[in-house]
Amino acid sequence: MLGNFEFCNPTRLYFGKDSLEFLKQELPKYGSNVMLIYGGGSIKRNGVYDQVVSILKSCGKKIVEDAGVMPNPTVEKLYEGVKIARENSVDLLLAVGGGSVCDYAKAVSVSVNYDGDPWEKYFLKMEDVECKIVPVGCILTMVGTGSEMNGGSVISNHKTKLKIGHVFGDNVYPKFSILNPEFTFTVPERQMVAGIYDAFNHICEQYFSGEDDNVSDYIAEGLMKSIVASSRVAIKDPKNYEARSNIMWAATWALNTLIGKGKSQDWMVHMLGQAVGAYTDATHGLTLAAVSIPYYRFIMPNGISKFARFARNVWNLEGKSEEDLAKAGIDAMKSWMEEIGVAKTLTDLGATSEMIDGIADATFILDGGYKKLTRDDVVAILKESL
Amino acid sequence: MLGNFEFCNPTRLYFGKDSLEFLKQELPKYGSNVMLIYGGGSIKRNGVYDQVVSILKSCGKKIVEDAGVMPNPTVEKLYEGVKIARENSVDLLLAVGGGSVCDYAKAVSVSVNYDGDPWEKYFLKMEDVECKIVPVGCILTMVGTGSEMNGGSVISNHKTKLKIGHVFGDNVYPKFSILNPEFTFTVPERQMVAGIYDAFNHICEQYFSGEDDNVSDYIAEGLMKSIVASSRVAIKDPKNYEARSNIMWAATWALNTLIGKGKSQDWMVHMLGQAVGAYTDATHGLTLAAVSIPYYRFIMPNGISKFARFARNVWNLEGKSEEDLAKAGIDAMKSWMEEIGVAKTLTDLGATSEMIDGIADATFILDGGYKKLTRDDVVAILKESL
Repeated sequence: MLGNFEFCNPTRLYFGKDSLEFLKQELPKYGSNVMLIYGGGSIKRNGVYDQVVSILKSCGKKIVEDAGVMPNPTVEKLYEGVKIARENSVDLLLAVGGGSVCDYAKAVSVSVNYDGDPWEKYFLKMEDVECKIVPVGCILTMVGTGSEMNGGSVISNHKTKLKIGHVFGDNVYPKFSILNPEFTFTVPERQMVAGIYDAFNHICEQYFSGEDDNVSDYIAEGLMKSIVASSRVAIKDPKNYEARSNIMWAATWALNTLIGKGKSQDWMVHMLGQAVGAYTDATHGLTLAAVSIPYYRFIMPNGISKFARFARNVWNLEGKSEEDLAKAGIDAMKSWMEEIGVAKTLTDLGATSEMIDGIADATFILDGGYKKLTRDDVVAILKESL
Repeated sequence: MLGNFEFCNPTRLYFGKDSLEFLKQELPKYGSNVMLIYGGGSIKRNGVYDQVVSILKSCGKKIVEDAGVMPNPTVEKLYEGVKIARENSVDLLLAVGGGSVCDYAKAVSVSVNYDGDPWEKYFLKMEDVECKIVPVGCILTMVGTGSEMNGGSVISNHKTKLKIGHVFGDNVYPKFSILNPEFTFTVPERQMVAGIYDAFNHICEQYFSGEDDNVSDYIAEGLMKSIVASSRVAIKDPKNYEARSNIMWAATWALNTLIGKGKSQDWMVHMLGQAVGAYTDATHGLTLAAVSIPYYRFIMPNGISKFARFARNVWNLEGKSEEDLAKAGIDAMKSWMEEIGVAKTLTDLGATSEMIDGIADATFILDGGYKKLTRDDVVAILKESL
């Protein structure tokens, strides 16, 4: 049954080969000081940086740069960014990059006009964003997180036990996002598949919960089938526009709140994966991949009918008992993960059996899935993932 | 391949049994004069009117009523509504009803501050809406049109040959919509199934076009499967909240632009059905139902692979040649239509063979589908639909 919910997603998206042109249409809506935010410089190598700067200049904008945003942006970097934004009275935060760069821009956005410590207020206590935000625009160059069309942001704080903080809010959505699938062509294969698995797992987290015959689950199945089909093309032919455009658009809808509306959700794979990430600094999507099959096998007996539905509707399997079907669905998912090269173990990602206790301590246990885990369960799943 | 597109849908939706409560949260955002727009008075019989008026009064609003909005709102009614809105300097147009009431409110919304003839400018010439609009909120009591979350409005003009005009615009979206599935429980069965078929056909219009392996088509298939499954429950048990809530939410996403983004679209069933409606005044969803099976059988040879995909992915059929599968998919769709009681003929809806020429003349021929029709094709399809 669809429970009560509110849905509003005001981000304006420009999608396609020519979508960067629309930056010219957006820029006049904001003041003249633009903070250009990016990561390690891949946008300089693939030409996106030059294209963006050229448009900014042609629109008469004054550019201040904030480069070097790391894969899991830290609170120290956030403080730096806030300082730059304040000193330059920026009117628009323009993120050019993947999910981390977008998340970071959104974190700066809510912090610039807040006098206290943003980590404390937003990311730790998750309080509402009430101060004036600085508008954010995103130019996406890597697919997976959905940050381009949602109101969330994740920041890491290695000094605290929590490691990771989230802010969510109606006013945290980017004002606009530009999605050109061609900008993702130069992403290295291992990052491409990590992003694909991240998006796929976002759908799993919302899908593997609840037992009702819910419209959201049908949409989720459609998105999963599309990602599987397109990933099989993209892994062989990374410059296939059709495949990359489908992956990009499916990933956006995998985490812009739609498919989770009105239903319970799981998110334990993310809790486990993020704890692994804090210990190994491995790529986010691969940490999810490493723990997910052991996790789903562990909880499957408590959600047999949904896993059987997954086998039928996503993998076109049939003709077995519900339990056999449920198992076969997870097996099919594992085979696909092997096919695209994301079937990694925690050992592959640099984790050791000595880290298990620490990772288990850092794992925040949620209760929306088919089985609420105990700490012993977490340890068992992590050992199985090694 | 996903073509270039822009996506922005700013409508805020409140969904669920308790969603009317959120009207109290929305009302303070607007001035004190509220125009309460509704249709034939069913909302007085089922208690929704009293609940809405009570909330409006508790929020200190001054109410001016505009009742009697007909199923296909006319341009004469529009002129009346504009006059009422101007005389009372209304600050919010609150539509309580189905798609026609929402469409009408949106038409008034764009016309109040326009000095010329809105029919001429918006509905006939389809010019952009540049004048200040009066904000619209919708409280939905009937499912099907998707008007609650899109920027379109359809108005009828029986004096012109065109009969029907459309306005579309970024600023035509309702500011908020309240969707309580329980408000749809008292809709008569024939209107419920007409609405279900209307929503299903909106998906078909966007789905049966193009041959790429497009993420939008996967989402469309999910929505169709959900509507089919829930309609089978609702026809036996109209007060089944799970089924009615799924139908309501799926219908919203069937026509809020998402599943048509970046792809070609058909819409010929609507062109045919609307022409039939102008001659018979039959319920919109039933006119679509009457012409759709003959239309799809007619164009199927030009789109075999898509109709075969439809058979596999929506109706779980397999094991035949692509052409047999394509035919079997349409047959399965027809069986479902018979099951829920929407498999009407044009004769059932009051059309006669003498009307065929006139209906064909009134049919606007589009070319997004698998075969661009000639006038002879239109006549043949209409005869087959009698």
